[in-house]
Amino acid sequence: SNPISEIHSELDYEPTSPIEGDEVRTRVNKFTVETADGKHRFGVRGRIMLDAAYLDDNFMTTDDDRLDRGDLAKYGTIIRRARLGMLGVMYDRWEWQVEIDFRDPVTYDIEEGDDIEGIRFANTYVAYLFDHGRLAAGYFKEPFSMESSTSSRRISFIERATPIDAYRPSRELGVMYETLNPNYYAALGLFGGDGVSRNRRNTEGFSVAGRASFSPVYDASNRIWSHLGLSVNYRSNGYEYQRSRGREKEYNSVRLRSRLGTRAIDGRVIGRRDFSDVKDMTRYAIEAAYGVGSFSIQGEYAGVRLNRDENARGFENPSVVKISNGGYYVQTSFFTTGEQRNYRRFSGDFGRTRVQNPVGSGGYGAVELLARYAYADHTDHHDERGAQELKHYTLGLNWYPVDDIVLKFNAMFVDAKTSSRDLEPGEFKSWDSMVYALRLQFEF
Amino acid sequence: SNPISEIHSELDYEPTSPIEGDEVRTRVNKFTVETADGKHRFGVRGRIMLDAAYLDDNFMTTDDDRLDRGDLAKYGTIIRRARLGMLGVMYDRWEWQVEIDFRDPVTYDIEEGDDIEGIRFANTYVAYLFDHGRLAAGYFKEPFSMESSTSSRRISFIERATPIDAYRPSRELGVMYETLNPNYYAALGLFGGDGVSRNRRNTEGFSVAGRASFSPVYDASNRIWSHLGLSVNYRSNGYEYQRSRGREKEYNSVRLRSRLGTRAIDGRVIGRRDFSDVKDMTRYAIEAAYGVGSFSIQGEYAGVRLNRDENARGFENPSVVKISNGGYYVQTSFFTTGEQRNYRRFSGDFGRTRVQNPVGSGGYGAVELLARYAYADHTDHHDERGAQELKHYTLGLNWYPVDDIVLKFNAMFVDAKTSSRDLEPGEFKSWDSMVYALRLQFEF
Amino acid sequence: SNPISEIHSELDYEPTSPIEGDEVRTRVNKFTVETADGKHRFGVRGRIMLDAAYLDDNFMTTDDDRLDRGDLAKYGTIIRRARLGMLGVMYDRWEWQVEIDFRDPVTYDIEEGDDIEGIRFANTYVAYLFDHGRLAAGYFKEPFSMESSTSSRRISFIERATPIDAYRPSRELGVMYETLNPNYYAALGLFGGDGVSRNRRNTEGFSVAGRASFSPVYDASNRIWSHLGLSVNYRSNGYEYQRSRGREKEYNSVRLRSRLGTRAIDGRVIGRRDFSDVKDMTRYAIEAAYGVGSFSIQGEYAGVRLNRDENARGFENPSVVKISNGGYYVQTSFFTTGEQRNYRRFSGDFGRTRVQNPVGSGGYGAVELLARYAYADHTDHHDERGAQELKHYTLGLNWYPVDDIVLKFNAMFVDAKTSSRDLEPGEFKSWDSMVYALRLQFEF
Repeated sequence: SNPISEIHSELDYEPTSPIEGDEVRTRVNKFTVETADGKHRFGVRGRIMLDAAYLDDNFMTTDDDRLDRGDLAKYGTIIRRARLGMLGVMYDRWEWQVEIDFRDPVTYDIEEGDDIEGIRFANTYVAYLFDHGRLAAGYFKEPFSMESSTSSRRISFIERATPIDAYRPSRELGVMYETLNPNYYAALGLFGGDGVSRNRRNTEGFSVAGRASFSPVYDASNRIWSHLGLSVNYRSNGYEYQRSRGREKEYNSVRLRSRLGTRAIDGRVIGRRDFSDVKDMTRYAIEAAYGVGSFSIQGEYAGVRLNRDENARGFENPSVVKISNGGYYVQTSFFTTGEQRNYRRFSGDFGRTRVQNPVGSGGYGAVELLARYAYADHTDHHDERGAQELKHYTLGLNWYPVDDIVLKFNAMFVDAKTSSRDLEPGEFKSWDSMVYALRLQFEF
Repeated sequence: SNPISEIHSELDYEPTSPIEGDEVRTRVNKFTVETADGKHRFGVRGRIMLDAAYLDDNFMTTDDDRLDRGDLAKYGTIIRRARLGMLGVMYDRWEWQVEIDFRDPVTYDIEEGDDIEGIRFANTYVAYLFDHGRLAAGYFKEPFSMESSTSSRRISFIERATPIDAYRPSRELGVMYETLNPNYYAALGLFGGDGVSRNRRNTEGFSVAGRASFSPVYDASNRIWSHLGLSVNYRSNGYEYQRSRGREKEYNSVRLRSRLGTRAIDGRVIGRRDFSDVKDMTRYAIEAAYGVGSFSIQGEYAGVRLNRDENARGFENPSVVKISNGGYYVQTSFFTTGEQRNYRRFSGDFGRTRVQNPVGSGGYGAVELLARYAYADHTDHHDERGAQELKHYTLGLNWYPVDDIVLKFNAMFVDAKTSSRDLEPGEFKSWDSMVYALRLQFEF
Repeated sequence: SNPISEIHSELDYEPTSPIEGDEVRTRVNKFTVETADGKHRFGVRGRIMLDAAYLDDNFMTTDDDRLDRGDLAKYGTIIRRARLGMLGVMYDRWEWQVEIDFRDPVTYDIEEGDDIEGIRFANTYVAYLFDHGRLAAGYFKEPFSMESSTSSRRISFIERATPIDAYRPSRELGVMYETLNPNYYAALGLFGGDGVSRNRRNTEGFSVAGRASFSPVYDASNRIWSHLGLSVNYRSNGYEYQRSRGREKEYNSVRLRSRLGTRAIDGRVIGRRDFSDVKDMTRYAIEAAYGVGSFSIQGEYAGVRLNRDENARGFENPSVVKISNGGYYVQTSFFTTGEQRNYRRFSGDFGRTRVQNPVGSGGYGAVELLARYAYADHTDHHDERGAQELKHYTLGLNWYPVDDIVLKFNAMFVDAKTSSRDLEPGEFKSWDSMVYALRLQFEF
């Protein structure tokens, strides 16, 4: 008997209408197919990060401002990221991507007024490719900071340095122009706010975001490289109000949070309490890095200035109107096995490190030694229980058995303090502890 | 050393047991692979729709029946649809599809008793293909209305016309037979109710749904076409009760809702309040369309009759037992660049329009001008605050740079009214405003 | 004009940087691509299970302990499983998998304190393949029981037998070594607890789990086979407490639940109430099976012993400290069409049955007749309303039109009882009913 596709040949019924095959190239690992003329491309991608952590002193931490509270878990395991995505190029000039993060599928112990998150979107956009730039529209990172711009697959430690983690912007829906030039990077974007979901009453705000970087010292072999960069981001905060009843605006709360250097134990050592009545805010970051062979050093200063609206509905004493928070980090990396970090001038961030002697080809993989000091100042807060400060010390060891798998170990010392309702203003509750964290990550 | 697949050759261990390659055809854009004999096929598909909207007069709208309430957002951005799916044919005659919609991952400001939705399913079924028909079982649209049957990738405006949006049925689990005949379309299905999740106490109801259409005037080149269609859908509503305690049935609430013509601002101008105590309901739609070259016109009448159960547990005065709601729309389309809508007689809906001069091949894409008037009558309601009525005027401009990308702009005038607890029965709160909406969509 | 990939050739911009194609083998059905040398592999997989059920006597069931309560739905339809996954081998020795289950996307009628689940993870891991074993890290089933280890695509009935369903462990994050030996199976693993999400205060517990099996009688053609196996699993339960305030531990509640033999009606006939204050627990299973040609028989005993902590914060009278629950099942299968169950010695479970005369190749598919008796004893409970017992009788008919599609019908008699707050201790509320369930499943 004839196959059904022949019987249906008079219909335009998609499931059985004949397809005309392309002449293709196929890559199996990091699955991608491409037409021989390079004008169409389709691929599948993913990343899985599995984390475990152990907290040495888990009692009376600064996760709670009260003196006799703040006990955290002793140890924990989580799926930190589980992203599946598809990406492609169509008609030569149109690039697109869709990426979903399935992490954190459970929301524990819900309360009235909670916002319940199902899945999260990562990159989800379409872009037009110019000869030396791209115009993208959709959902992606606001351009900001070297460490924030570097993919989570390529950062050195298990989590980004505290001040970047706390003060960087989120992904949002927007439009952005980026250069695609071998020697430097520049980006300018306009973004909406408040995520990707419907919210009937919330006028969501917007941001204007820019970032630029270049490499003052660079040799053609990429053995010596350097990086200088600057980011500025202005955001007008979203709000709702009932003007028809003469009520004042109620601004969205602003969360600037960072944890212990792992999410497997989720103590909030910076930004435990959100800021309220924030009208607008300006973020900025100054970036520098330098590499020579297997050694590299990287550092940034990141800060945020918040303007609060005295006319806002919920505005409360103490009437702090302008707030500044910020921090910095310095980190070094050394590959004992001869590899080097893959600095990319065209995007001002880091790409994949190629393992020289992978496991399975007679080698033992790549080994990277790391050290980082990070400081974040969150002491300027309008809520007397919201002030926090962290000194964060990390030693790291990364093992890359093959290109697409990394095992990371971080030994961290957290030296934290917080203001407290149980203390006088200006006094602080202190806590310090070792934190040990492990990550197994792979990508495809 | 031998590859692990050889070492494991004595095992039937799936991850390493050898695969026998097929002779295949591969299509890169809209990725599909097919065996050379056409008997097996596998593909990946997706659609992304990114929406923005601006509301001219966002205060005291009919989203709230009270005179001094109903303020909505001024502007908003959302991911309207983000669907990833897989589809295939196996053993020549068995067609299947799985499609997940990841939109709206956040539920804001939850309250006791809320139903929290994680992801949504789109088409998820397996079907047996006969020579001239198909029998499908799974989750898909109940057959109803031309505009409802047309894929969201192929509709002319950003959202479907108000009465179709409000009164069409949902996707449900069911079985359906459809014709696959080049000249006409007919479908009959039996469906369950209440979605795809477990619900311990809810006896979920069922529906019987049919649709048929043909093309009284049609020329072989598809330059002139016409469409007449009819849909009828009877649904017995789901309920729970505790018969063991002598309690009466409590029927599932019935939502028949439509918004502003965009979801990026989510005002509920039709069906803000659900119907309660509905025992069963009958929907119907009358469909007509006509096209000649680049010009087309399309219109439908859709209505619903609800029967309420006076013995239901929550039955309240005013004791309205029979309720009728309905509406109609007329819309026209004209391609200034020579393309035409792709009417498909075999399914009574619209397929993809092929762009004649795509961007990147020396052209500027396709341009479509649109106009629509839609009316929905929801004034017959058992709840005195539930009555609403809408006159909805839309001018549209679509730009298709290439086949798989569309940029849509809709300028809309909403002329709405609602009953109000602040007014006498028969009096209405009125609101009108311009709404501007933008969509960027791509498919793969 | 040049394609964009040439213009960008000086950049390392992933979306357009040229790919080097591999020499590949492609399988269309159960889509997999493999490099010609077998060292890299990528595939996509999925399973869809659509269930319907009808409950003969749905009033005053043992889903509620009170005498005049416990009414369940009369009928229901659900998507029981909808899994999409990707899997592969990289660099010859590294196997990985990611699999998401999208079932049950709605949580109805939420209450304060609920845990809201978005999506669920199924297998999500990376493993190193030794010549005769594998070391896996990630999220997968704790090794336990033949029926639990067998994929849901390969079990005989719609749901696993009651005692296995109730007393088996969950998937957790962990590390496990398994043999890959043609003649026997052994596994030992260490697992965390409490799922994959962050939970700030919960110290999540751990388990040590082992399973081993062999085939005392086996002929090389696999027409005669036998199975003996043993599983033991010790779990230290997770908890939270505020040691800083001198409070006692509060252990995670322990759910050991089973339903009617279908989830489409979700009555909780075993384990309606969770156990509290459980410090640790030990599960065990004894497995046996035998097959000759088209006939097979399979049975297991599974049990669990719980130790409660008298010092726990919520410990209540009656002060039951040690609790034992367990059960067994025996089931037989006979293929009237000549096929046989595909017992796999290397993993001690069942693989896919190959249909000898598939529909579409002149045949009518495979037909399997089934019978099962299962008993579960949950009467030893610390909560006087928590005791339940079930005798569960099932007749089954499976039809496999082709290898990857199964239609299952189960006619079941449930004979249940429960303790009740309306009765004296030692007295039971009884309920029995027929349950009819249907499943349509396909895989790709």
